[in-house]
Amino acid sequence: MSEYTQRIDVARRIMEASDVDALCLSVGSDLPYLTGYKAMPLERVTMLIVPRSGRAHLVVPGLEAPRVSVPDDAFEVVGWAESDDPIAAIDGYLGDAVTVAVGDETWATFVLDLQSSNPARSYVGASNLMAQLRMHKSQDEIVALRNAARTVDAVVDEMANVRFSGRTERSISREFIDRTISLGHDTMDFGIVASGPNGASPHHEPGERVIEQDDAVVVDFGGTQAGYCSDTTRMFVVGRAPYGFDAAYEVLREAQAAAVDAVRPGVTAESIDAVARDIITDAGYGDLFIHRLGHGIGMDTHEHPYIVEGNDQVLEPGMAFSIEPGIYTPGEWGMRIEDIVAVTDEGVERLNRSDRAYRVVD
Amino acid sequence: MSEYTQRIDVARRIMEASDVDALCLSVGSDLPYLTGYKAMPLERVTMLIVPRSGRAHLVVPGLEAPRVSVPDDAFEVVGWAESDDPIAAIDGYLGDAVTVAVGDETWATFVLDLQSSNPARSYVGASNLMAQLRMHKSQDEIVALRNAARTVDAVVDEMANVRFSGRTERSISREFIDRTISLGHDTMDFGIVASGPNGASPHHEPGERVIEQDDAVVVDFGGTQAGYCSDTTRMFVVGRAPYGFDAAYEVLREAQAAAVDAVRPGVTAESIDAVARDIITDAGYGDLFIHRLGHGIGMDTHEHPYIVEGNDQVLEPGMAFSIEPGIYTPGEWGMRIEDIVAVTDEGVERLNRSDRAYRVVD
Repeated sequence: MSEYTQRIDVARRIMEASDVDALCLSVGSDLPYLTGYKAMPLERVTMLIVPRSGRAHLVVPGLEAPRVSVPDDAFEVVGWAESDDPIAAIDGYLGDAVTVAVGDETWATFVLDLQSSNPARSYVGASNLMAQLRMHKSQDEIVALRNAARTVDAVVDEMANVRFSGRTERSISREFIDRTISLGHDTMDFGIVASGPNGASPHHEPGERVIEQDDAVVVDFGGTQAGYCSDTTRMFVVGRAPYGFDAAYEVLREAQAAAVDAVRPGVTAESIDAVARDIITDAGYGDLFIHRLGHGIGMDTHEHPYIVEGNDQVLEPGMAFSIEPGIYTPGEWGMRIEDIVAVTDEGVERLNRSDRAYRVVD
Repeated sequence: MSEYTQRIDVARRIMEASDVDALCLSVGSDLPYLTGYKAMPLERVTMLIVPRSGRAHLVVPGLEAPRVSVPDDAFEVVGWAESDDPIAAIDGYLGDAVTVAVGDETWATFVLDLQSSNPARSYVGASNLMAQLRMHKSQDEIVALRNAARTVDAVVDEMANVRFSGRTERSISREFIDRTISLGHDTMDFGIVASGPNGASPHHEPGERVIEQDDAVVVDFGGTQAGYCSDTTRMFVVGRAPYGFDAAYEVLREAQAAAVDAVRPGVTAESIDAVARDIITDAGYGDLFIHRLGHGIGMDTHEHPYIVEGNDQVLEPGMAFSIEPGIYTPGEWGMRIEDIVAVTDEGVERLNRSDRAYRVVD
């Protein structure tokens, strides 16, 4: 039995327990997680329909059908022609389902079409259902995350020997991206290079700013390797750190390390956020730590569990997520340190292992 | 008045005419089309709320807020903190709107949350509303599409001098991608290289197949330059074309050229599809032309108008779309020729101008 068949079986047990009659998955990682097939984000709908019992169907645009391979007959592929009505086909395969769970990233246009084609059904989000599956990673999945982490760690080490000053953020970003692909990644999802005052915007888009002497530079980059994501943040300082930076950085390192050390089975996601936040707040930087501590990672860069105040999800072995506190002083500089960690039977494994001290570069 | 303010005004006039009380836009190109701001596809919701009259609001995750610049006060930016409820905020800005149009690519999870937070509203797709705006391109938009087309044309010419045989599809694909970035593209969206029998799958994912002597290779690639998309397909043949290829290719070229020549204001989208399809069908290949003739293009690779049977959209000056007939013989080879064209006041402008003969390569 393939892993996909096993996952569909588990999905059905969760559907049973949560009174969901059918599951509909489209674009995003939910679909390849259950089938091995990734749908292109197109105006032509792709939808996997998994009823609680009975045959699952994958409705795909006819011209995508040759790209689908079906693991041990886990579902039936139904190609639709350009002049067919795929919404009617999907509604047909839903049979007498009343409560239908829809994958998070499914395009609104298709959900609205399904709702109006059959108002008797009730559509709900599949977020919790799929999270229960995808949060619990197999050994193979942890290995894939570890391998992806090793690659970005190696890139960080390489880049510590590269000149930053006089180059644009965009050029440094491209070098991170190119080197990560060279060392084994299949795709790159982002390559944030935020220098000087730009560092205070956590998701800054690297642009034409030329990096200068005494800039602190936030580098946060990641992509996929064998289908699993990397995501790490390290700091680079050109010459000497700006005023106030070193004191804050010491606090940040301490907070990040303490949060990692606190990870183990049985504690809640929000308690890990609190460990880092308390240290940063006690040191007087609490208002400058403007985002949650972390996010789950797997086939998506951001997935459950989210390490955020209010999330009482209990950590269990096999969960993987980022620990990435940051301190941001608008108009001056920003800093963040990010590692991916995995919950083990006894505690925690850090998947990123490159030096967490900031790198002094030319 | 900025182009964004103008576009929001036009959107409001269309809302008025179509009895839509408010427009909600999230991920995808609808949002940057109206605001200049592109939302990251995140579990943290971003939503622009445009009521038919009154102030527009852009609800964004707090840590993205620094990335938003607001063209002449066209809307108000509202950042939400990690522990806020953004759905409640969005619902609040919707005020007393009853019929709400939602952007096509908005994540299902947010629409379902909005629906359950206020069942009194009726949500409909914003597809037609946004199509009426985005289909009618300004001169600046046509210039951007023309520039993007020029870049991929230059890459095709460069690649005609490159050895294909003995290399994997993946390696050739990467070379197309790298060269397109080098010549001016900002991002690459796809680089299909489908060799030999793989050519029969129109959206084949380039893989480890090694290209051999006498392979026909479909190359379909594109990305974005200054925010607008390129998309072209040309054929490369290693040595001699396979059996039956040349006769079919002659038909394909004729069909593609005839369809381009038929484009002018006042005719329907489906009539252009029919021009190419009739020629291919009359020559006996009709069953092997398994997709629509083309798709609109602009900020998205695929947008309205779709050049497909059943679409009676009348073509108007400023519309831009692909003309890309194909012939696919499963297990043997595939072929496709694709140009982007723009409807002018009198007729048509081909934006792609590289030679449409297949290129013989080593």
